[in-house]
Amino acid sequence: MADDKKLTPRAEDFSAWYNELVLKAELADYAPVRGCMVIRPAGYGIWERMQRQLDDMFKSTGHVNAYFPLFIPESFLKKEAQHVEGFAPEVAVVTHGGGKKLEEPLIVRPTSETIIYAMFAKWIQSYRDLPLLMNQWANVVRWEMRTRLFLRTLEFLWQEGHTAHATHDEAEEEARKMLGVYRDFMETYMAMPVVTGVKSDAEKFAGALRTFSCEAMMQDNRALQAGTSHNLGQNFAKAFDVTFQSETGTIEHVWNTSWGVSTRLVGGLVMTHGDDIGLRTPPLLAPIEIVIVPIWKSEEDRGRVFEAAAKLKAELVEWERRDPHRLRVHLDDREGMSPGAKYYEWELRGVPLRIELGPRDLDKNQAVLARRDDRAKKPVSLDTIGKEAAELLVEIQDAMLSVARERREKNSHRGRITYDEFRSIMEGPGGFVYAGWCGSGACEAKVKEDTKATIRVLPDEEFCSSEPPATCLACGAASQSEALWARAY
Amino acid sequence: MADDKKLTPRAEDFSAWYNELVLKAELADYAPVRGCMVIRPAGYGIWERMQRQLDDMFKSTGHVNAYFPLFIPESFLKKEAQHVEGFAPEVAVVTHGGGKKLEEPLIVRPTSETIIYAMFAKWIQSYRDLPLLMNQWANVVRWEMRTRLFLRTLEFLWQEGHTAHATHDEAEEEARKMLGVYRDFMETYMAMPVVTGVKSDAEKFAGALRTFSCEAMMQDNRALQAGTSHNLGQNFAKAFDVTFQSETGTIEHVWNTSWGVSTRLVGGLVMTHGDDIGLRTPPLLAPIEIVIVPIWKSEEDRGRVFEAAAKLKAELVEWERRDPHRLRVHLDDREGMSPGAKYYEWELRGVPLRIELGPRDLDKNQAVLARRDDRAKKPVSLDTIGKEAAELLVEIQDAMLSVARERREKNSHRGRITYDEFRSIMEGPGGFVYAGWCGSGACEAKVKEDTKATIRVLPDEEFCSSEPPATCLACGAASQSEALWARAY
Repeated sequence: MADDKKLTPRAEDFSAWYNELVLKAELADYAPVRGCMVIRPAGYGIWERMQRQLDDMFKSTGHVNAYFPLFIPESFLKKEAQHVEGFAPEVAVVTHGGGKKLEEPLIVRPTSETIIYAMFAKWIQSYRDLPLLMNQWANVVRWEMRTRLFLRTLEFLWQEGHTAHATHDEAEEEARKMLGVYRDFMETYMAMPVVTGVKSDAEKFAGALRTFSCEAMMQDNRALQAGTSHNLGQNFAKAFDVTFQSETGTIEHVWNTSWGVSTRLVGGLVMTHGDDIGLRTPPLLAPIEIVIVPIWKSEEDRGRVFEAAAKLKAELVEWERRDPHRLRVHLDDREGMSPGAKYYEWELRGVPLRIELGPRDLDKNQAVLARRDDRAKKPVSLDTIGKEAAELLVEIQDAMLSVARERREKNSHRGRITYDEFRSIMEGPGGFVYAGWCGSGACEAKVKEDTKATIRVLPDEEFCSSEPPATCLACGAASQSEALWARAY
Repeated sequence: MADDKKLTPRAEDFSAWYNELVLKAELADYAPVRGCMVIRPAGYGIWERMQRQLDDMFKSTGHVNAYFPLFIPESFLKKEAQHVEGFAPEVAVVTHGGGKKLEEPLIVRPTSETIIYAMFAKWIQSYRDLPLLMNQWANVVRWEMRTRLFLRTLEFLWQEGHTAHATHDEAEEEARKMLGVYRDFMETYMAMPVVTGVKSDAEKFAGALRTFSCEAMMQDNRALQAGTSHNLGQNFAKAFDVTFQSETGTIEHVWNTSWGVSTRLVGGLVMTHGDDIGLRTPPLLAPIEIVIVPIWKSEEDRGRVFEAAAKLKAELVEWERRDPHRLRVHLDDREGMSPGAKYYEWELRGVPLRIELGPRDLDKNQAVLARRDDRAKKPVSLDTIGKEAAELLVEIQDAMLSVARERREKNSHRGRITYDEFRSIMEGPGGFVYAGWCGSGACEAKVKEDTKATIRVLPDEEFCSSEPPATCLACGAASQSEALWARAY
């Protein structure tokens, strides 16, 4: 941070830009514990809006919330072989409690499959208890070595859905349905377009049959895994003996799914929409949608401008009651601070719409609406400002999604591509490459070794190329599936 | 649980009644980790409504939410002498992470003063940064030996408010204000009357200057400390060097407050309102306020009753939109289950209002409203049922508070009381005793030793007796303060 006022430009150092933005916009701060973060009110306000919206979507698809313990007996983690292999290296272990050494160490949950399915085993008796559709909002801990604010922290906040079903197909449908809920949330609310699909075996969740994922492209052309949904098959049901009596009287193991998104989404929002002057928040997730900045020089002007600004805020807040979409308005009435300094601060924090109101505006019965996304300004009559501001917020939300989608498409590569071309894309500008894959783990590993790119997903049909690639990117053998390759966070 | 259907009556064994109710109403379950609980959807739904309401109240008093780390470096806990003395014996300690022994052990937060004020020290520079008004919703861990579902568990969910102020008086005002918010919440929403006041030194928070508390009386006449608010003085500010430049340019330590309520409140709600057949939930906190139970015998009746019940639900849900208080309605359309079995289940779970709808009701264009609190039933015309149900819910909420308040007053003792009388109250029926106290910790300790009763609070003026007690309950010396004595959870 050479200049305390300015962010390092994205083009110069994307990673530095990101860290500076997160710290200066006061979204988060480093905690005094290695790899941990403090989520500050400006960042937590965005997470709260994400939570509220997702929670509504989970409930409207039939899920209920519950809460399971933070601590998991070490023996539980070991019951599912792949699961322990995946998670054991990155757990935090409680060995002492109440001044004494514990007989069995406790794991701080890295995810809760084991403890939740142990409870499901107790609660599920018959097919009448199915499907069981639960979610929990919780903190989890994974002992990461390289951490980044929001993107990868030792502790993070998330939700984890856990369900049990009578058949494979119902579990598959549930995992797919929740992937769709995530995609809808990311596109409609975050204005962040995603590619959905299934993970390769090398990239799937430890213990899952199949993992589905939403992959977004950040402004440095790297992929962000934004949310995943797993069909766990009967793996955990067998490990924890979760059985039910079927309608015909047989005893069967249930089929589970789990799915989660985390505070990582706040980082994804920043890397999708931020610009060189700060954050741009999609209106639907902005804790403050509109900030009113009064402008005055003389004491006389001050009086009438403040009065008009307060009246305008009251009107906008009143206006919201006539519509299900509520306007969240803040009047910045701080004294001893120039309008320019206030503009700077609110632009850095990403408030989508600013209303500037000065004496000359008042004389003309108008105010100036300034968009954060494209920084366009226009004067608007005070008689119609509520309606215009509300419409503009909808327009901004849509524009942000369009801009992000265009950027992604511009940096996506399809069609015949040689391995050399692929390497120079990955070593140069980066991006999404849709290319063939023979299905072998060896080819996948080779590409990763050579280029740091991985298969993000085998994309769902709507994302696949009109003409499927014929050969494997790495070995040239016949392609089995089209794969989306990219470097990822 | 001799009879699987019935709860042990409260009068027979209050503690057994409580555990059975919590388990059978599926509010919570024992977790496979000692002292930990699983909060099941029926219990979590109540907690969610508590959270939503409290969160609104915190925000409308100017507080913002943030999130601080779960782990606290061991050295932090040691910085405030009283604090470490109070909490060190009951912490859980992480000694290993990522497969390695840690250089410095990490404490799983038992409360977050230390880590939060370490951050405040970084964020607060000048008087302009004050007051700083924050809250976090989080899980905390205290290594309790004797645990009870909701009331005292190794891990629990809570909120902890943390604020910083320029002066002692502002901190005192804040601590008092939040005590008032808690009281308002407990009385208006939980229908649980509380006595407020200040704690004696022996009972105050480890590290506080003064602790204020809301104390409620459970149905076994024991006190429940339902929420506390602390004026922390400059104790933590000095330990963590939280300073600010005052308006006159001097460098001063800030004054802090902290305040919290937890999932313990769900236990308090059960012990305040439950009866021998199950839970009674105050309507404002009930996840379901009204359950509709259709009744039929013949197939023909089934058709028209189901149709009418679905229409009624739609009407009630429509009705809610015309009023800020929303009706939460569930139609129990399960097949193969008798109406009686459904009544039993919903009474156990504490749904405040039941609507019974059968063929004979339909013939008369009516339904039967059955209150959970006093089990009164009355037929109501289907033309006016929305309005009547909504009004009845308000009436139930008020009635529950009145009943609880009357019960408390009936079991509160004031006026001249000998130590022998006091002992026989505490060893017999229990209750709240308002008696004199000379102010000595020795007398307080002796009473506790003799009777297990403690000073719950030195009550606020409105709760004090019209004629203040003249002598100390224990030693007979002149009383310095009126004290509320009781056995407590």
